[in-house]
Amino acid sequence: MTLREGDGNPMASPKEATMPCPIHAVAYDAERGELVLLDQTLIPWEEKYLRLDRVDAMVEAIRALRVRGAPAIGVAAGYGLCAVARHSQASTVQQLEQELDAAAVALGVARPTAINLMHAVARMRQALTGGAANARALIAALEKAAHKLYAEELAASALMGKHAFKLFHDGDGVITHCNTGALAAPGAGTALGTVLYATRRGMKLHVYADETRPLLQGGRLTTWECLHQNIPCTLITDSMAAVVLKEGKVQIAVVGADRIAANGDTANKIGTYGLAVLCKVHRVPFYVVAPTSTVDLTLDDGRAIPIEQRSGDEVRGAFGARWAPAEVAVYSPAFDVTPAKLISGIVTERGLVRPPYRNGLRLACKK
Amino acid sequence: MTLREGDGNPMASPKEATMPCPIHAVAYDAERGELVLLDQTLIPWEEKYLRLDRVDAMVEAIRALRVRGAPAIGVAAGYGLCAVARHSQASTVQQLEQELDAAAVALGVARPTAINLMHAVARMRQALTGGAANARALIAALEKAAHKLYAEELAASALMGKHAFKLFHDGDGVITHCNTGALAAPGAGTALGTVLYATRRGMKLHVYADETRPLLQGGRLTTWECLHQNIPCTLITDSMAAVVLKEGKVQIAVVGADRIAANGDTANKIGTYGLAVLCKVHRVPFYVVAPTSTVDLTLDDGRAIPIEQRSGDEVRGAFGARWAPAEVAVYSPAFDVTPAKLISGIVTERGLVRPPYRNGLRLACKK
Repeated sequence: MTLREGDGNPMASPKEATMPCPIHAVAYDAERGELVLLDQTLIPWEEKYLRLDRVDAMVEAIRALRVRGAPAIGVAAGYGLCAVARHSQASTVQQLEQELDAAAVALGVARPTAINLMHAVARMRQALTGGAANARALIAALEKAAHKLYAEELAASALMGKHAFKLFHDGDGVITHCNTGALAAPGAGTALGTVLYATRRGMKLHVYADETRPLLQGGRLTTWECLHQNIPCTLITDSMAAVVLKEGKVQIAVVGADRIAANGDTANKIGTYGLAVLCKVHRVPFYVVAPTSTVDLTLDDGRAIPIEQRSGDEVRGAFGARWAPAEVAVYSPAFDVTPAKLISGIVTERGLVRPPYRNGLRLACKK
Repeated sequence: MTLREGDGNPMASPKEATMPCPIHAVAYDAERGELVLLDQTLIPWEEKYLRLDRVDAMVEAIRALRVRGAPAIGVAAGYGLCAVARHSQASTVQQLEQELDAAAVALGVARPTAINLMHAVARMRQALTGGAANARALIAALEKAAHKLYAEELAASALMGKHAFKLFHDGDGVITHCNTGALAAPGAGTALGTVLYATRRGMKLHVYADETRPLLQGGRLTTWECLHQNIPCTLITDSMAAVVLKEGKVQIAVVGADRIAANGDTANKIGTYGLAVLCKVHRVPFYVVAPTSTVDLTLDDGRAIPIEQRSGDEVRGAFGARWAPAEVAVYSPAFDVTPAKLISGIVTERGLVRPPYRNGLRLACKK
């Protein structure tokens, strides 16, 4: 099932003509003023769209990973604020601004690691401070800002695909971690999006998808997307990556990012750092693919990136099954930081940045 | 629940007095002539003992990992043959020998990687060729041979603990992969057994247990054993090992083995090789702990070790849950081979062997 025309984001159609993608992770129903999310906790079992207009439900959806992927949660926060505005009971524009300000704060801290969320919220708050004459004007400003966020991420997906194209070679095995496709972003996505871009242009690539414990975004989402998009894909456990690399099955690694520091250190889903070390040892190039909305130039290096800790129960079992004793202690960082020295290049919508990253990232982020 | 006295192996009690261990993975009911296995596919939910006397059920139990761990499946094959002999309907000793020979072949190929199984079966077949005058004498010879196997592994566990003791330091974090404790062997086990040995002697150690996808022997079994034995333990996903190493939480890695080639290359549960690479990069010593029954001097190096491939469904889900689409391809080697150069030392019951391993392993295996 995909969103019907007029059911999703009105800006999606023209852009997506250049990058066909049947999956809509985040959309906005402009008619009803609702944030529309594909509930990713139900994939691959069920394709169910959530329609949200309350901030508490949006925060819950972000925390529970119903919407996930750094670009996607940024856009979700943007459209989320629009939906809150559209359904507000505020009687003055000042009241509405206060309500939206509180909602922006709540959304901005829903998850701590992906900077895209904070960037998106900051952009939306600028629209709030425009001194709108009335609620209608304020809503219009918010919707314009959110559509712009969406359109930028959509364009970024296609551009990252274009810039990464030269990194792939016909017949390559491509290892990836977590999900970084059309479920993680508007458009085709980041790392997996570049694979889609290349295969759509006739390149023969074979994805090796790390299952990505604990929440199995690789096993559930990347496999599902690859099947949907006819991309050859083999699922492995995270612990099999080393063997796949050693056996020469893989020629390149592409991963996404949740935050990139000024020096190129990159926070991404837990397991990325280990994969990067293994790629280095096996001389397999390791690329990060992320829009510049993921870059945080205020952080000099990766040490200051806040790392979300998740519940131990996510490790004690998975999706209805529980196998570890309830009493056992669990350590569960949701992300890790890959040092810049392990990264062969960072693909943004502005182009491929090579190490040393400091200068290239600053240039890429210049508006 | 533990086996009552007289309910398990009669040889267990005196030896175990030196190494208290409440868990019996494999035992023999000498009165009823039955192989007794703790069904490890039900741990940690249920402690159920299986009583087997038919070879097809034994092969199923080994293939389905109801009994697993290289030393444990060797001993299970030994006692299994005794149980088959005790319940045989053969009318002559020649018929019985033929039946046992066929059973030995079936057990010997139940799983391909752990050499202990082949070693155990070869030892039992020697007992078969002793020219027994009658069935009673043949059974007595088999039971003697199986008890000897059991006693040797039991003694080996305690001796490995003793030899590994000097490798640990008070306060160490110890990372381990899969389960290598009292569920994997008679006695306290191999790698985890050495941790138990050291903690029983007052050493403060903290285990970091890789959950060990796909079959979660770390998440289910190592955690359960650590709780049982009061060993401080933190469960992590396999993909978190790199971070735990980077953060300095771990000072030593200990793993078991399913087969060790003459040069020290070691086959062990999938994920071991990647962990060894990560330990090398983070300068954390990486030790293999295994009895000499795991060494295969006929293989010059690890390339010739046969690697079992397991069903894709074990990766598409786990223990009642299924999350990856049924149509997605899966690559699932059950084991990988860690090159000798990544191994800091191999602890056997004969002592600690340091690299280069060829000479030391040959000496350790000399009877």
